[in-house]
Amino acid sequence: MAVYTEVSDADLTRFLAGYDVGELVSYRGIAEGVENTNYMVTTTTGPLILTLYEKRVAGGDLPFFVGLMEHLASNGVSCPVPLRNKQGDALSTLSNRSAALVTFLDGFWLRAPAPRHCHAVGKALAELHLAGSSFNMQRANALGLAGWQKLQQELTGRLNGINPALEDMITQELTHLERHWPQDLPTGIIHADLFPDNVFFLDDQLSGLIDFYFACQDAFAYDFAIALNAWCFEKDFSFNITKGSALFEGYESVRKFDEAERQALPTLARGAAMRFLLTRCSDWLSTPSDALVKPHNPLDYQRRLQFHQAATSSTDYGHRPG
Amino acid sequence: MAVYTEVSDADLTRFLAGYDVGELVSYRGIAEGVENTNYMVTTTTGPLILTLYEKRVAGGDLPFFVGLMEHLASNGVSCPVPLRNKQGDALSTLSNRSAALVTFLDGFWLRAPAPRHCHAVGKALAELHLAGSSFNMQRANALGLAGWQKLQQELTGRLNGINPALEDMITQELTHLERHWPQDLPTGIIHADLFPDNVFFLDDQLSGLIDFYFACQDAFAYDFAIALNAWCFEKDFSFNITKGSALFEGYESVRKFDEAERQALPTLARGAAMRFLLTRCSDWLSTPSDALVKPHNPLDYQRRLQFHQAATSSTDYGHRPG
Repeated sequence: MAVYTEVSDADLTRFLAGYDVGELVSYRGIAEGVENTNYMVTTTTGPLILTLYEKRVAGGDLPFFVGLMEHLASNGVSCPVPLRNKQGDALSTLSNRSAALVTFLDGFWLRAPAPRHCHAVGKALAELHLAGSSFNMQRANALGLAGWQKLQQELTGRLNGINPALEDMITQELTHLERHWPQDLPTGIIHADLFPDNVFFLDDQLSGLIDFYFACQDAFAYDFAIALNAWCFEKDFSFNITKGSALFEGYESVRKFDEAERQALPTLARGAAMRFLLTRCSDWLSTPSDALVKPHNPLDYQRRLQFHQAATSSTDYGHRPG
Repeated sequence: MAVYTEVSDADLTRFLAGYDVGELVSYRGIAEGVENTNYMVTTTTGPLILTLYEKRVAGGDLPFFVGLMEHLASNGVSCPVPLRNKQGDALSTLSNRSAALVTFLDGFWLRAPAPRHCHAVGKALAELHLAGSSFNMQRANALGLAGWQKLQQELTGRLNGINPALEDMITQELTHLERHWPQDLPTGIIHADLFPDNVFFLDDQLSGLIDFYFACQDAFAYDFAIALNAWCFEKDFSFNITKGSALFEGYESVRKFDEAERQALPTLARGAAMRFLLTRCSDWLSTPSDALVKPHNPLDYQRRLQFHQAATSSTDYGHRPG
């Protein structure tokens, strides 16, 4: 939620001259992107988004992210498209950071999505999974089971400061996940962070997906389980099964889940809740208690996890396999 | 540098329906405005800026700020113009905050202004002073001499934590300013914060002034002294007299300083440096030491102050009264 890197008008003007995008008209830092610095840049040809990749993002991953956006866009997924400069490069350097200039996506994210929006999101997620199958770059999921265990070890001794008994709960849950984590599910490119703020709508239609900076290879059904966590719980942490059904129906209108995926869903949903519980605990513990902008409350995911622990099959999420 | 207030798409859509501005196309929080929350809103009629006034800004002052922008814009000053809704109001309520929708100003602020830009800024400042003379609302300067003394008292005992001897220096300087602060200079509406980030340029021409949230009644020459501090020092705190001359020439191409103003300038410049030294000390001491976004270093103004303490007349700033 901040501009970490300041860009001078002289540097930006020089940078833009390397592209075929007209002249600079305005630029403003935007308060989005926890990992990177983003500017909304307007030129004589229209609006663009400039992203400066901060050091937290591994430089070696950037060609994957930028290549993926290009690949998805050219395979029918509505997402920001990286522009290539006159040298043909989609990644270059600005203010001592790797930088990309991408198209601006009309629309805005929905603060209170309805079931019909969940249907659209499910459909878009399946389309992304299919479109990614022809992408030939690889990125492992750094926030899979091994990543959770590593995070847990880093946080050991401090978790109970957030909530008593949190440390025990997480240890037990990770043991369960390690024993039951499904193998051999269909895998491919997943978004891995498809929360409402990464999906834009315009005139009630899905207008695009953004923020591919957690994308990686993993099980498609795990990506779906993340979306179940992100889209189908109400503010009081109750699970909205109508939204769940809509998400399933949207997804399966494009790609059907197989039996192994269906059976694995409660476990995958537990894993997805654990992934966000752990990263939120980490953010929570590294943010000064008097910071102006508070991090998300990690315990929101403890509540979701409790729902998943009681679920026994995909039908508990509204799945009606037909 | 943050979005303090989240606005839902449903609330924003309802809010915009109260204006004659077309349909919502996109909105993004922008990382500007230390006091308020700003969104860049695009509708089917083009870009706008939405400002939500946070509680730090006294609600009673809002009609002054909004009225001033309207008045200046209709008197030839290029600045954001508040739109009036269908009820005829320029101020209304959104997300439990007072809110205004203003026009979007093309251009961007210059990170390294040259003397020709200082000339343009001097001219625009004098034009603002003349245009403000027909504005009939009042706002006292809360950050004048009495305000500085109040701030000093609040910070007593902590200033030396920033720099040894800072507390003594500030006490002595405030005593000097109290004894020598000029009375009976020409007064009127001043901007009071005309730093480079509040002046936009496009194609090397000044395209507008923004951020009127410190505007008030005070001496015109004090406003000019703020601009001397803001525009004419280099990064090594040396005073660039070429820029000083350009600022004077631009200003006096519109409004000439009288003898009393000329004589008062070194004292006014000391006061202006003290004003920013004190508010920066306050920001510095109230920001967690491990915050991601660091506040400005207050000691930058101690260095400027030292220059002013050695100045004896306006000619030391490049003034060539003609």
